[in-house]
Amino acid sequence: MPKVTEEHRLARRAQIVAAARRCVIEEGFHKTTMADVIRESGLSAGAVYGYFKSKEEIVGAIAEDALSTIDELFGTILATDDPLTPLAALEATIDHVVEIAQRPGGDVTRVAVQAWAEALRDDSIRDIARGKYCRLRDHFLEIARRAQADGTVDAGVDPEDVAQVMFSMIPGFVLQRLLIGDITPATYKAGLRALLRS
Amino acid sequence: MPKVTEEHRLARRAQIVAAARRCVIEEGFHKTTMADVIRESGLSAGAVYGYFKSKEEIVGAIAEDALSTIDELFGTILATDDPLTPLAALEATIDHVVEIAQRPGGDVTRVAVQAWAEALRDDSIRDIARGKYCRLRDHFLEIARRAQADGTVDAGVDPEDVAQVMFSMIPGFVLQRLLIGDITPATYKAGLRALLRS
Repeated sequence: MPKVTEEHRLARRAQIVAAARRCVIEEGFHKTTMADVIRESGLSAGAVYGYFKSKEEIVGAIAEDALSTIDELFGTILATDDPLTPLAALEATIDHVVEIAQRPGGDVTRVAVQAWAEALRDDSIRDIARGKYCRLRDHFLEIARRAQADGTVDAGVDPEDVAQVMFSMIPGFVLQRLLIGDITPATYKAGLRALLRS
Repeated sequence: MPKVTEEHRLARRAQIVAAARRCVIEEGFHKTTMADVIRESGLSAGAVYGYFKSKEEIVGAIAEDALSTIDELFGTILATDDPLTPLAALEATIDHVVEIAQRPGGDVTRVAVQAWAEALRDDSIRDIARGKYCRLRDHFLEIARRAQADGTVDAGVDPEDVAQVMFSMIPGFVLQRLLIGDITPATYKAGLRALLRS
């Protein structure tokens, strides 16, 4: 396939994902239909269905966009040779989540909250959410193992248990940011420093 | 009002709240209508509207039921004269959340996740959620202040920041329990003990 066509394909795909994100943020996942996404994207039905067969697939793509940047972030965090603490990893993750949320095109954390609710009633969304969140949690698992090797976390604890608690900090932050609104990376990181061993 | 009538009134109210909880768990908040709640409750429309004017009011009542038991729990936690740690308070809260979730009549944490999503698009639900969660977080604020007085948390940190992080542990646990399913109070408490200062 010539390069210009591949670029065109990726731009079209991004256009559809962005349209779907706007629909879900405005209407909620449940009320959003493929017809809404087609209308919002300004493309033909045939064009949209050429990329995504269902809104479940599009939601998967929205989550994938956000998670792929988080994968990169953890690559960077783990690349250091210095002793790694859960605190340092969480501080970097919180900053990154807010950075992603503030990108133009709509707050992806709002889509996440919609997906949580939908996952409780729709097995295909639940499978997507579970897969994405297990992948995110696996990054914390890697941090926990590394911190145990470095001696900053007790080596006698199951690192999976440590990863469960570290993971919690992300939805916990997102929810307070969206529902209560008085939370910032600065206040949260101050709280983390006070509570976590370092 | 004679006592038997007040008892009758409370039983009727509980019957409506239980019916609404089942509807929201099964259909989601958005799809649930007052007509669904009336049908599920087995009462007349007039009877149901005599207690609740809207489904927003009923969702407020469902949340109130769950939170009032948490208020009691924090009363008990704070009643001790021993030095109080955030860890001990969180361990007790996690046990209590699972106990509430497993009560007959439907898992109230599923209703909470539906309410989070709905709160992003409906200001009246957002106000209810914000009020309830600020009240829950205020309990953690009290724990943080007490822990600072006891010397188990650095007194130089804003206790509101500490409360934000403590609060996060609850939705973080609930979400992993519902979406991933591999989390228990035992695994989570082991993770908390490994990560938190004590």
